[in-house]
Amino acid sequence: MPEKKCTVKFLPDDVSIDVFAQDENLLRLAIVSGVHVNASCGGAGTCGKCKVKILEGEYDSEPSAKISDEQWEEGYRLACRTKVKGDLVVEIPIESRHEKGVLSRVRGDKQDHILAEKRWGAEYDTVPPQPIVKKCFLSLEPPSADDNISDMGRLGQAIKREYGLENLSSDLSVLREIPSIVREGEWRVTATVVSTACGNRIVRIEAGDTRESAYALAIDIGTTTIHVQLLNAYTGKRLARGAEYNAQMSMGEDVITRIIHALKPGGLEVLQKRAVKTVNEVLDEVFEKSGVSREDVTHAVFAGNTTMTQLMLGVYPKYIREAPYVPAANQLPVFPAAELGINLPATTLAHFMSCVASYVGGDITAGVLATEMHLGDELTLFMDVGTNGEIVIGNKDWMVSASASAGPAFEGGGVKFGMRASYGAIEQVRVNPLDFEPMIMTIGQVKPKGICGSGMIDCIAELQQAGVISQNGKFNRDLAECTWRVREGEEGGWEYVICREEETQLDEDLTITEPDIDNLIRTKASIYSACAVLLKSVGLEFSDIQRIIIAGGFGQYIDVEKAMTIGLLPEVDPSIVSYGGNTSLEGCRLACLYMDKVEQSEQIASMITNIELSVSNLYMDEYVAALFLPHTRMEEFPIRAKMLEMTKKTLAEARCDK
Amino acid sequence: MPEKKCTVKFLPDDVSIDVFAQDENLLRLAIVSGVHVNASCGGAGTCGKCKVKILEGEYDSEPSAKISDEQWEEGYRLACRTKVKGDLVVEIPIESRHEKGVLSRVRGDKQDHILAEKRWGAEYDTVPPQPIVKKCFLSLEPPSADDNISDMGRLGQAIKREYGLENLSSDLSVLREIPSIVREGEWRVTATVVSTACGNRIVRIEAGDTRESAYALAIDIGTTTIHVQLLNAYTGKRLARGAEYNAQMSMGEDVITRIIHALKPGGLEVLQKRAVKTVNEVLDEVFEKSGVSREDVTHAVFAGNTTMTQLMLGVYPKYIREAPYVPAANQLPVFPAAELGINLPATTLAHFMSCVASYVGGDITAGVLATEMHLGDELTLFMDVGTNGEIVIGNKDWMVSASASAGPAFEGGGVKFGMRASYGAIEQVRVNPLDFEPMIMTIGQVKPKGICGSGMIDCIAELQQAGVISQNGKFNRDLAECTWRVREGEEGGWEYVICREEETQLDEDLTITEPDIDNLIRTKASIYSACAVLLKSVGLEFSDIQRIIIAGGFGQYIDVEKAMTIGLLPEVDPSIVSYGGNTSLEGCRLACLYMDKVEQSEQIASMITNIELSVSNLYMDEYVAALFLPHTRMEEFPIRAKMLEMTKKTLAEARCDK
Repeated sequence: MPEKKCTVKFLPDDVSIDVFAQDENLLRLAIVSGVHVNASCGGAGTCGKCKVKILEGEYDSEPSAKISDEQWEEGYRLACRTKVKGDLVVEIPIESRHEKGVLSRVRGDKQDHILAEKRWGAEYDTVPPQPIVKKCFLSLEPPSADDNISDMGRLGQAIKREYGLENLSSDLSVLREIPSIVREGEWRVTATVVSTACGNRIVRIEAGDTRESAYALAIDIGTTTIHVQLLNAYTGKRLARGAEYNAQMSMGEDVITRIIHALKPGGLEVLQKRAVKTVNEVLDEVFEKSGVSREDVTHAVFAGNTTMTQLMLGVYPKYIREAPYVPAANQLPVFPAAELGINLPATTLAHFMSCVASYVGGDITAGVLATEMHLGDELTLFMDVGTNGEIVIGNKDWMVSASASAGPAFEGGGVKFGMRASYGAIEQVRVNPLDFEPMIMTIGQVKPKGICGSGMIDCIAELQQAGVISQNGKFNRDLAECTWRVREGEEGGWEYVICREEETQLDEDLTITEPDIDNLIRTKASIYSACAVLLKSVGLEFSDIQRIIIAGGFGQYIDVEKAMTIGLLPEVDPSIVSYGGNTSLEGCRLACLYMDKVEQSEQIASMITNIELSVSNLYMDEYVAALFLPHTRMEEFPIRAKMLEMTKKTLAEARCDK
Repeated sequence: MPEKKCTVKFLPDDVSIDVFAQDENLLRLAIVSGVHVNASCGGAGTCGKCKVKILEGEYDSEPSAKISDEQWEEGYRLACRTKVKGDLVVEIPIESRHEKGVLSRVRGDKQDHILAEKRWGAEYDTVPPQPIVKKCFLSLEPPSADDNISDMGRLGQAIKREYGLENLSSDLSVLREIPSIVREGEWRVTATVVSTACGNRIVRIEAGDTRESAYALAIDIGTTTIHVQLLNAYTGKRLARGAEYNAQMSMGEDVITRIIHALKPGGLEVLQKRAVKTVNEVLDEVFEKSGVSREDVTHAVFAGNTTMTQLMLGVYPKYIREAPYVPAANQLPVFPAAELGINLPATTLAHFMSCVASYVGGDITAGVLATEMHLGDELTLFMDVGTNGEIVIGNKDWMVSASASAGPAFEGGGVKFGMRASYGAIEQVRVNPLDFEPMIMTIGQVKPKGICGSGMIDCIAELQQAGVISQNGKFNRDLAECTWRVREGEEGGWEYVICREEETQLDEDLTITEPDIDNLIRTKASIYSACAVLLKSVGLEFSDIQRIIIAGGFGQYIDVEKAMTIGLLPEVDPSIVSYGGNTSLEGCRLACLYMDKVEQSEQIASMITNIELSVSNLYMDEYVAALFLPHTRMEEFPIRAKMLEMTKKTLAEARCDK
């Protein structure tokens, strides 16, 4: 838990919130506090609606054309352009304010359950890396007539003595270089050694001490996006991060369409090359950013779902898709990354995270590794919501997994203005239940250009709580009379206008449509029902779960309460839920730096029992039952049931206002 | 020991000899029996001098223009064109015969100490191969909904169950092929598995049962000649053998000149490519001969001296030649042979025999492996006489080695008509001590075109015993009066004419010259003195040695007595001496077929203590003392001393005859 920095009090609601982040944004604090201030430009400072009056305290605020000199003198500022520097007292002006009673009635529990991404593995930051590929510095005795063993023998003896590494072998390239390098370095050399269960192989030799120039790459091969993190393998330091849409996207958005494409003549080759092309582009970016030379990258750890893994490796994926759904391999060979066409030197080793089954891949193994659910007693539910939704339940003694063909809605797929969590994505949304005006925040506080996963969860939960949409995800069409934001779109479908064109980076209004909502409901239903089936398969219930970890590309701010409101999560104590972000990438990072994490990942993959949902009748029943906000079995969501009651009342009052 | 086939009795000497080989040549039997018949065309049937009368028995003889119909009726045949088919009684006609008394006096011991090449490892011919790369046939259960582990997992389980191989990994290429191959083979597949100390790697997968199509190559990289033997790795059968001069020969005859060439710009690359070119040529030959497809070669075991090994691997050999004589590596990496440019599939593994030191290489390790001196208690002296001369002394508990820069005289180098042991090489020589006429036998019984190692040992020993050359290797010029065969050559040096031009395949008389003899004396001296120094270094004497094994390209018939006569071997009980032929190739063959032999080879290389002769004063003294036939210390050769006395007597008699 980070240290508390200061406290901000909002008046007249008299809501106080502790601030943990340096330079926290005042609008974000208002959202988190449940204090409503209209804000429709995502924090870009252009709509001028989030005007607040700062009564006292330390802060840093940008001037704005929306605030007159007179107002500035009086203490008016734009919340979205204000950084908190110390304790503050802030007054929400009358025009931005709502009748407090109504609001608090609707909001219910006031606790902050917005989950900033957990820094997984932070405890490892003090542990010196012990990677599978390690640079060993050695100061050798020069040979003499009495001691004229071979150069390689001399090096091997020193590596054994200084680093305790035995069973040494070497690459041919090292053998070719060793006579010159040891003499060039005057017998002070650095050997790059790959450690495996069965021995240690020297893959590179350099003159002098180059231990600190050892880098590793964590590479997450997503169906939609490829993420790369560059690490210093000696210090463990994170040096650069990059991401790019997987260039296979034009051959289909999900794994099934990719597999179908791979079966066409030459299809597999094209897909393999596309993935490699994307990786190479992201690598160019991270090397550019960091100034690191790719020659010094000792190894890369890759994780991807089973299809992405096989496509990356150029392995025919046909049988992943055909019953009984058999992957080519779960444990994958280790070989030079360059063999795939990746622009890395021949000495850079590629390690792929082991897969579990055809639809539970190395990304999930990496995710479990990152969450450490395989190390503790706590019964943990891990859900990775990406293009597919994969679930793992268990602890250090057992684990079961399942895959739900969720669809990429939370990553922006199949959503009209959906986008991944990047600059300009709306990541937080609040809707005023009285006038249905939104309060939004974008990543990077720029004008919005779309909406990411956490934004969509917020949006649907808030629209439902405000009565704008009903439990089946359809718009309350009567509200079109109360607000222009609810309307029939040009193509006939109903929609809610989050931002007007001029407030966005788009050429049109940014809306959320009924098909978007349907899509999200299907996605959340498939995940929730997969969890339900998995739990039943082991004779447990949601109430037995001690910890829930959500992973995926939702965006940095995911609100647990909202996720329960839409029925993505079961209604449990929100404090047991945490958000892991890209746990696949984080698992790769850990495996890059710690040899024992590589071993653990292999154990994880082999210990998980996968359950095939596609052949389960129970799953179909559960899925249909979950196609509702939050669920058809409202008894499983008692708090949400009560809130829905209140919404109906508020809505009646709101109508009266009109 | 092979089975005795029949007996041949020579009259009037009444010498009987047991015959072990099928279709043994009658002239060869005469040579071995110590029965002299003039024969100067090497067994080609053209000189007609080896006419004998067969009194009784079974034989197969070719007609000859040299034998009249009348003679044929009487039983006259050319010994060199006669194959022995059963017990024979043969009369040597008066014109071919010598006075028996003189001959037997000169010959001394009558026992046959000609060493046909020992079939090393013959006891292994009944042991099923257990090679480092093995084809495993597997009949897999097809996957089902209840059992849908990955294809590779299924294969791995079966390999573990059926073959007991654990810690399996695979090549990327196998992963790419497995889904299609298992289904194409209807779940009956053959996996090629490489076993190492630390695990087993699947390098190839084929549909169906292909176990019998598994081949291995034993490859001896000699400085002069590259030998290849093709083996069936499933049955152990020897399928084909081929050899070719190392194409590096044009860059120097010995390792030192090769190293010097390698240091020139681009030199190393050229040398590497030349060796590879030669290997590829010999491979073409053995594949052509055998009809084996190179795709089915699973592995190749290479052995060469340290310089040849480094040049083959493309490793800069500079420091082999500079004190303190440090090789790049003694234990060598295992990698695909194709990486060197060898025309074998990417799945064919190359294993190089471990070296001991800069001048005791993998050929010696392979040789020791073949002789099994590392397994027994017997104190063994192993000498490999090739381009260099390497000596190993020891047993299962300890071994010491040394290298003598012997020069390639016994392989034909630096000898006017020297050649390697191939078709047309004179491999056996006898000289009649009365008239100095020779009796020669060539490899293939064709007209001679040169003389190989065993022929040169015979020739020098016989010339010395006949008094034609003296103990310092100079011709007894007085004999020019007794025989035209001893003469001053055109360029002024003295020589002995072995064959006249018309009896050869050459355009000139085939002779042995004083420089040739000097060369051989230097070579044998360097080897003998190396043995002496090594023995002294461990406090032993020649008399402590229980077994002597000579290896090298001498040719098939090496006469131990003659080798002692020239002082190449110490004067020991001839029965402890055996000839190993190309023990390097034989060691490679064993390592190709038996995994434990690979391990043993590594143990051998690491247990041998090498002694550097070039820095030893003792060695120089010993070398100078050995520059004499057989040695300046005649007390070490008491039998030869007595024989020399007799020679002088015989010579006096011979003179009287003139």
